[in-house]
Amino acid sequence: MSKPTPISGFPEWTTSQRMIEQFVLDRIRHTFELYGFAPLETRSVEPLDQLLRKGETSKEVYLLRRLQADADGPAGDDALGLHFDLTVPFARYVLENAGKLQFPFRRYQIQKVWRGERPQEGRYREFLQADIDIVDRDTLPAHYEAEMPLVIGDALRSLPIPPVLIQVNNRKICEGFYRGIGLTDPEAALRAVDKLDKIGPAKVADLLAETAGASAAQADACLALAGISAPDASFADAVHALGVRDPLLDEGVAELVAVVETAAAHAPGLCVADLRIARGLDYYTGTVYETQLVGYERFGSICSGGRYDNLASAGSVSYPGVGISIGVTRLLGLLFGAEALSISRSVPTCVLVAVAAEEERAASNAVAEALRSRGVPTEVSPSAAKFGKQIRYAERRGIPYVWFPGGDGHQVKDIRSGEQVDASADRWSPPPADLTPVIG
Amino acid sequence: MSKPTPISGFPEWTTSQRMIEQFVLDRIRHTFELYGFAPLETRSVEPLDQLLRKGETSKEVYLLRRLQADADGPAGDDALGLHFDLTVPFARYVLENAGKLQFPFRRYQIQKVWRGERPQEGRYREFLQADIDIVDRDTLPAHYEAEMPLVIGDALRSLPIPPVLIQVNNRKICEGFYRGIGLTDPEAALRAVDKLDKIGPAKVADLLAETAGASAAQADACLALAGISAPDASFADAVHALGVRDPLLDEGVAELVAVVETAAAHAPGLCVADLRIARGLDYYTGTVYETQLVGYERFGSICSGGRYDNLASAGSVSYPGVGISIGVTRLLGLLFGAEALSISRSVPTCVLVAVAAEEERAASNAVAEALRSRGVPTEVSPSAAKFGKQIRYAERRGIPYVWFPGGDGHQVKDIRSGEQVDASADRWSPPPADLTPVIG
Repeated sequence: MSKPTPISGFPEWTTSQRMIEQFVLDRIRHTFELYGFAPLETRSVEPLDQLLRKGETSKEVYLLRRLQADADGPAGDDALGLHFDLTVPFARYVLENAGKLQFPFRRYQIQKVWRGERPQEGRYREFLQADIDIVDRDTLPAHYEAEMPLVIGDALRSLPIPPVLIQVNNRKICEGFYRGIGLTDPEAALRAVDKLDKIGPAKVADLLAETAGASAAQADACLALAGISAPDASFADAVHALGVRDPLLDEGVAELVAVVETAAAHAPGLCVADLRIARGLDYYTGTVYETQLVGYERFGSICSGGRYDNLASAGSVSYPGVGISIGVTRLLGLLFGAEALSISRSVPTCVLVAVAAEEERAASNAVAEALRSRGVPTEVSPSAAKFGKQIRYAERRGIPYVWFPGGDGHQVKDIRSGEQVDASADRWSPPPADLTPVIG
Repeated sequence: MSKPTPISGFPEWTTSQRMIEQFVLDRIRHTFELYGFAPLETRSVEPLDQLLRKGETSKEVYLLRRLQADADGPAGDDALGLHFDLTVPFARYVLENAGKLQFPFRRYQIQKVWRGERPQEGRYREFLQADIDIVDRDTLPAHYEAEMPLVIGDALRSLPIPPVLIQVNNRKICEGFYRGIGLTDPEAALRAVDKLDKIGPAKVADLLAETAGASAAQADACLALAGISAPDASFADAVHALGVRDPLLDEGVAELVAVVETAAAHAPGLCVADLRIARGLDYYTGTVYETQLVGYERFGSICSGGRYDNLASAGSVSYPGVGISIGVTRLLGLLFGAEALSISRSVPTCVLVAVAAEEERAASNAVAEALRSRGVPTEVSPSAAKFGKQIRYAERRGIPYVWFPGGDGHQVKDIRSGEQVDASADRWSPPPADLTPVIG
């Protein structure tokens, strides 16, 4: 058959990269569990009507069709699509299982998602997300909005990656401010300001006039608000200095002060209030989050989210929540592309047990068994070739040790230094730093 | 909106069950890595022509279609389907990356797969598989066929599940024997014998006559071979006693003796030679494996695989391999259904830090931070309600400890025993057994 080729937008890491990814996922998961988030996986598919509730992404959905759909199945199957994020499935899960869940419900979810987008740098069609959310019934205390940056900060700072900066804003500040200056369509204003990074202030001002009916003074005020940024509560003074008064604005400022101060108490420099952060047209109603990887800002946010009040409701019961999502594939794709992450060997193996002759393979198996029983990743040599060839098998993979069984005594060789010592499979252990591959 | 409902064949575990699943996956992965298998994930989709190479499963494939396919995409996208196993993608991966891989190449792969089958007990449309494979270029030593049961045995015996029995056979035994007794279509004979469990010996004899042209004596011989089963090399004597001589038969017997003896040296009782094991019409050419969970035999094999010589080839180069796959969802579905697996709490949290008053939340956050920094999973109470209500929050989730910060001293209460002691967040640790949920 002809040689297969990659499919654009569906990345595949090497085994070395996959070891790094697993390391990253283990660290993220460990942090999520330290904060008491319980793991959840939802099915990969949702009914199409669920997926389309978040209107803008409808064009990105992959629908499923059975190759040989038969009479009993097509109607149901044709209405299924692959989820494009983990928030919509989670909202559905909460509604479906509300009677069995304990609220507030804290869960994390690390899964692939799919979008039929045109692939480009940092944009994939299949990618891995790591989400946390907290939902409650009817009301959700604002202090949970201040907890999110702590979790994400700890998770990302546990990784061998550049520092991160979490940028926070609050939708109530924007909406309250826009109303306070007399704009009647705050959503249109938000949409315009959201384009600031892309089109610049002059064009945003034009857009504010066109789509939100803003006067020149109102547009200037919107741009002044979006220009405010501070790593502490001083952003509130800058907002007040704009002289706008509105109850929703005040509420938003107080909430954002709590977010910034809680983060500063936990990790100075982690969080910055940046009032241009808008998170598009999503379902957010309070705090919103974006995260920059320092030195990689041009690639955009690697971790985003916010508070939502209206994502899930059943009859008169609503389930407000707050959540944030790490774009794991996006993050790793950036760092792999920049060759900024490495691993000390291409296999988990720490020891290769040599085989002196094929008839003596059982003795080598016994050595491997003894080492594995004490947690040392061990392979037995593929063949009883000359020892030089067996050592090259280890070298090519970065396996640090080769073990030589012998009738009157065993020896183990560190093939990096060439040092070879007597050893017993029941007692010998590698230095801890050699036990598993080192990632940096 | 109306309450969403489950989709048949797409299981969703509770968070407690998901914690058990993660525990199981961590153990399996740890064992795979102890044997030096490197992790790999392939994309979830393959071109349809790749998926259809294994003809029989074509009816089970889910194809993808973008909801709003446009001019640039439909042709490519319409030809993509979700993978239905991890072997076909792995074979494709090996061909695609052959120039970059080190052979023999040992990889494990733990991923979801999808089949558009009619759902029934133990059969899902979305499920998780955990595979190991070893492939080499041109030739693959038979000793790798003997290694598979060791890995699987260690992986499954590391889990809190009933004992397992790995049943092994070798295709060469069947094919050589059928030829040796004069049957000219050994594949037809294999297909007939494969139905033994379903239709019984009399009907298999009829089928052998109809489809493989077997005489009554030949059919009897086939059934006699299929009746042989032994936990050690004595199965070879039983085969020889049937008086059939064929070079391929002898080769298969020698290989199967090595598999059984290697397994017996590693773990007595783990493996049994059972010459009725046929593994359908798959691509296997040597050893084949099935695995019974003792007490759950009626549900069929939970872990299957075999040696394949012809799955991947490019021009004159072939990539023979051997692999085996644990049906994780199937295994857990069985055990969850039988309520045979439990967990001591429904969240990872070990300590709930109480909040005396909302103004003092920062002090509770500081306690939580100190505990987490030493690896203790900790939540802060959702509200400054009466302590009794805060304790009930912990009780309902099975969180064992509640922490009470105080101006002149902190206390921690084991809410199971009621014991309450003075404690410092910088020093106190729970007993190791309480740190993470206990699974059994």
